[in-house]
Amino acid sequence: MLTLFAAKGTVAIASQISLEEANLPYNIRWISFADGDQHAAPFLAVNPKGRVPALITDFGPLTETPAILEYVAELSGQLMPEAAIERARVREMLSYLASTMHVNHAHRFRGARWADDPSAHASMVAKVPQTMADSCAYVESQLPDTGWLVGTYSIADIHLVTVCRWLAGDGVDIANYPKLAAHFAAMTSRPAVANVFKAHA
Amino acid sequence: MLTLFAAKGTVAIASQISLEEANLPYNIRWISFADGDQHAAPFLAVNPKGRVPALITDFGPLTETPAILEYVAELSGQLMPEAAIERARVREMLSYLASTMHVNHAHRFRGARWADDPSAHASMVAKVPQTMADSCAYVESQLPDTGWLVGTYSIADIHLVTVCRWLAGDGVDIANYPKLAAHFAAMTSRPAVANVFKAHA
Repeated sequence: MLTLFAAKGTVAIASQISLEEANLPYNIRWISFADGDQHAAPFLAVNPKGRVPALITDFGPLTETPAILEYVAELSGQLMPEAAIERARVREMLSYLASTMHVNHAHRFRGARWADDPSAHASMVAKVPQTMADSCAYVESQLPDTGWLVGTYSIADIHLVTVCRWLAGDGVDIANYPKLAAHFAAMTSRPAVANVFKAHA
Repeated sequence: MLTLFAAKGTVAIASQISLEEANLPYNIRWISFADGDQHAAPFLAVNPKGRVPALITDFGPLTETPAILEYVAELSGQLMPEAAIERARVREMLSYLASTMHVNHAHRFRGARWADDPSAHASMVAKVPQTMADSCAYVESQLPDTGWLVGTYSIADIHLVTVCRWLAGDGVDIANYPKLAAHFAAMTSRPAVANVFKAHA
């Protein structure tokens, strides 16, 4: 049985949605960022990086959202397109979301990762609405007029809705990006997404 | 024919090595970061994100290092292990390198992405030796005592050597991490790696 380590409101939401959409049985283990669980020995034994998500597989813990999402897709035979170029498009979006858009967002709360000076953190926080708006504009340019990111429903859609859940808090109005807003509405109307969002509210 | 857009010394090195190792025919198109080519209209038509690498495929431009590397692996039938969990381990490392270790490095030169205040940039630069050392310690913990990251030679090894090429400039002595240093030496003794490094010197 798979076990997902998650913390409320984090990008672990994406992994949890993928497990729900794929109908794979799993347990969930909540850790509390407020209590610092991610930096305590029991969790560091699971993931020395001190981050969620971590998925306990038959072969040990697996970390990193793009890797977990595609592993869930491979286990279930769902949520990934068949053509090589379309799989590449899914991975292109996963990588952008993880290494650019999520990183932009992280400068709001996690500036201490990259600078020690509190005034540097304030400067980072101030720029988040702009960097997240720029990311939205890029994603908007990649979305088709209707439907899912690469045609068929995939883990890229799941990762995207997870990151877009942060936009209001980051000072970005998703209504400025009509295709992205429609994608968000379509995603949150799916029972699996709505249920996981509710669990993280 | 594939065409790779690259700039000297950048993470495009990884994509170029993968093409060499896979023996896929390709053209290379150099752009100059010093001349600001990445922000000029001709390149933005290729990649609106203004970043390298970009690989021109039969289906248009593909961006993001993890996506390009795995596409090259799929086209060639090489450089990826067969078992699902081992493919997941490769993707876990690609994601860590792209979204954590490369991002740590990027705070040395690209602080303007995340803050407008020059003193914030100075604070970011000051922390790079520490964040990159932390990343090295994590990767060291993941490397086997000998050999490649997941047993067979893969795109994860290629991405790793590319990021480790920056360590000396980032103020980290790779000799402090014996398994990582041995991995770097093994990689740079491969003709494909040595040739691409030479092209980027």
